Amino acid sequence: MVERKRWENNFSEWFQDVIFKAELMDYRYPVKGCGVWLPYGFKLRSNVVSLIRKLLDETGHEEVLFPLMITSRMIGKESEHVESFEEQIFWVTHAGKRELDEKLALRPTSETAIAPMLKLWIRSHADLPKKYYQIVSVFRYETKATRPFIRLREVTTFKEAHTSHESYEDAEKQIREAIKIYNRFFDELCLPYLVSKRPEWDKFAGALYSIAYDTIFPDGRVLQIGTIHNLGQNFSKAFDITFEKRDGSRDYIWQTCYGISERVIAAVVAVHGDDHGLVLPPTVAPIQIVIIPIPYKEYEEKVLEKCRSVEEKLKREGLRVKLDSREKLTPGAKFFEWEFKGVPLRVEIGPRDYEENTLTLVRRDTLERVRIKDSEAVKKTFEMLSMIQESLRRRALKYLLDRVKRAESVEEVVRLTSEKPLIVEVGWCGKSDCGVALEEKTNLSVLGIPTDEASPPENMKCLICGEKAKFIVRIAKTY
Amino acid sequence: MVERKRWENNFSEWFQDVIFKAELMDYRYPVKGCGVWLPYGFKLRSNVVSLIRKLLDETGHEEVLFPLMITSRMIGKESEHVESFEEQIFWVTHAGKRELDEKLALRPTSETAIAPMLKLWIRSHADLPKKYYQIVSVFRYETKATRPFIRLREVTTFKEAHTSHESYEDAEKQIREAIKIYNRFFDELCLPYLVSKRPEWDKFAGALYSIAYDTIFPDGRVLQIGTIHNLGQNFSKAFDITFEKRDGSRDYIWQTCYGISERVIAAVVAVHGDDHGLVLPPTVAPIQIVIIPIPYKEYEEKVLEKCRSVEEKLKREGLRVKLDSREKLTPGAKFFEWEFKGVPLRVEIGPRDYEENTLTLVRRDTLERVRIKDSEAVKKTFEMLSMIQESLRRRALKYLLDRVKRAESVEEVVRLTSEKPLIVEVGWCGKSDCGVALEEKTNLSVLGIPTDEASPPENMKCLICGEKAKFIVRIAKTY
Repeated sequence: MVERKRWENNFSEWFQDVIFKAELMDYRYPVKGCGVWLPYGFKLRSNVVSLIRKLLDETGHEEVLFPLMITSRMIGKESEHVESFEEQIFWVTHAGKRELDEKLALRPTSETAIAPMLKLWIRSHADLPKKYYQIVSVFRYETKATRPFIRLREVTTFKEAHTSHESYEDAEKQIREAIKIYNRFFDELCLPYLVSKRPEWDKFAGALYSIAYDTIFPDGRVLQIGTIHNLGQNFSKAFDITFEKRDGSRDYIWQTCYGISERVIAAVVAVHGDDHGLVLPPTVAPIQIVIIPIPYKEYEEKVLEKCRSVEEKLKREGLRVKLDSREKLTPGAKFFEWEFKGVPLRVEIGPRDYEENTLTLVRRDTLERVRIKDSEAVKKTFEMLSMIQESLRRRALKYLLDRVKRAESVEEVVRLTSEKPLIVEVGWCGKSDCGVALEEKTNLSVLGIPTDEASPPENMKCLICGEKAKFIVRIAKTY
Repeated sequence: MVERKRWENNFSEWFQDVIFKAELMDYRYPVKGCGVWLPYGFKLRSNVVSLIRKLLDETGHEEVLFPLMITSRMIGKESEHVESFEEQIFWVTHAGKRELDEKLALRPTSETAIAPMLKLWIRSHADLPKKYYQIVSVFRYETKATRPFIRLREVTTFKEAHTSHESYEDAEKQIREAIKIYNRFFDELCLPYLVSKRPEWDKFAGALYSIAYDTIFPDGRVLQIGTIHNLGQNFSKAFDITFEKRDGSRDYIWQTCYGISERVIAAVVAVHGDDHGLVLPPTVAPIQIVIIPIPYKEYEEKVLEKCRSVEEKLKREGLRVKLDSREKLTPGAKFFEWEFKGVPLRVEIGPRDYEENTLTLVRRDTLERVRIKDSEAVKKTFEMLSMIQESLRRRALKYLLDRVKRAESVEEVVRLTSEKPLIVEVGWCGKSDCGVALEEKTNLSVLGIPTDEASPPENMKCLICGEKAKFIVRIAKTY
């Protein structure tokens, strides 16, 4: 395995370095909190976007595209919602030299852009369910320290799904579908996650409840990488979106929404990396295989010819292959560059490979080398790509699980997390006061209640009031 | 052929109707000049976007993504540029409750967003050429009447390419490549066009010169559907973007840019339509083939089974196929709906087809029906799709060419265009004064000089001053 010292001990620097030098994003753009997606990063982004698009299309979601600007009247209709976003909204107040009659918000999220159109589109139960999504930029005037992919003022890759249903039960069913979709999505990215029901004071503004996906970074801090919200009838009441029910009466529609952003890409970078740089899962790597000729006197042309034929063969199989035939760089310099950029598999072809009808495969994750026969090239390539995928998934999952601990007192939480932040699971009576006190005393944030666990052990107690625990609750240091 | 009376005589109404009822865009969004892409329209848009993306990727363009907001300082650096866009810029002045230190423009186009980054990226001739593009929304506070796809305040599908070169000659070479790319792009969309060099007073602000693609709409008005600009060193001087030349000296980079927008989709809709609705070229139709069962007592299940097997067979060939098995609608209602939505080819399967191993194909463009054997299904489908493509292209080209006339006097121009607007080619001495006078006297706009014609006929005279014509110039009523 490749070392992960710098990755773990100096993560923040490692992360900035990789994003810039692996040419994912250039963060020197003159507007704070906004970065430029570079060609290599853009391809990674496209592959991640294709993956989620496929999962949503397969489950009957329809892609749409709503305008960026929302009138201040629209955004103000759901009161909790506007209150929560108030401090974060960028306002367009002028056009040309004129002041606008009504100021326009850059969408911080699109519930209030979509609602007035749903009101026009939905008349009866026959129109339901409706499952829409869009992939857009959203804008939030973050006052905390901004950083690429994690906290941006222009979030450039916001996938937001918005669904409408005829009953609470149908909305709940949709929540379960969304969970399945996100599970599959994160699995394909080899990302481990914990799914928690956020506490009341941290739910999405305007939701009945919020479920969130969290993953852990090498610095022990937790990043929220996806959220799913049951909106109930809050927005439909605020926007008066009603439909005719099967029994002829009228009701407000029931809604859900769920989103992911480029934080997912931040997680792919952070979770799988090592001291050699990026390590990308084959599912989304812009280049899955790089072929590097090892030239040697009198063999240059023959080796290159063979490289081209292997490139051709692998491309025919639908793989994303690059032949790096630059003459000015040594093979070593190329190894370094493509390892840094996280290409999962390297093919080396030298004079001996030419003579003996072989090639050498090198895995990015372990740097293991294996020499194979030409005739096995396609089969072995696929085998190794799926081994890499599997091994990244397993390693990342283990890394996360190793960092989830249980504790029975505030002191134990503090002790456990003093050296390096962890995710700690503790007992909780369920009262908001105790939750807030827990955050204050541990200096951690409540992630919420595991969605997959029915009830806490019999003898578990609330860490604050000492009453019998009603829930297990996860706490951690978050981004 | 299908009638085109309403299409031609009542085009504006026809156009609005088709966009809305064929479910391309809903223009009732509460912010003026902004529309919502509906699922069917979004798929059409995606196919058009994929087409241009493919052409750009194949020619070494790299896709990137720049932030939306541009500081007022950046946008003000190139003086002609800012002056031309000044009246059209949406300004973000506040965030939360704070006033921003420096107001931020929503990009009307991205030259000034990209320039400061090019300055960081380009050091020497070895870094050149650089060919970037992005597909984004741009924002223009239009004061003329807005309308979907044609004049929007949020242009949602702006493909802008930005290239940098080491010499004027290289930039000129790039212009020629851009022309080739756009020619191929419009050909694939079956769109006819005229390519004109815009007059001085109508070029892109900050460009040495501008080339534009125009097509004609059924109302005789001309729509600009693409532009290509040689920027020279105007922006690189304003932003101080220099590089080390091969001889060791320094120079400013030479730039070009070229763009298209959803106006291309407006043109696809407008140019190919008829009184039954949309007619989509197979290259970009969201559904290329719709299969409709013609049920008849005791044959329902058999017919449906056969439909499914044809669907399967055509999908395996990579075609975009939809089987419309809705039970509540009659076949006639389905014909109407899919014709309106412009699906190029319809497959009808009824009891007789089931018994005799046949199926019926109906072309959208001509409504011609042909009954074929099951065994020919794949072959005939491909044949007919390419016949439709070819026939749309030919019809549209003829329509355009029929509407280009030559005239030798202002009176003749007025007479020719009095009944219905046309594109008129006339002699021009080349002086701006005469150009402007020509526009005033004819009440038309100068499109510019044909890029493909060396010089005008010997005896041609300027329509205004009577001097020997130096150029042919096209004039027309424009959108």
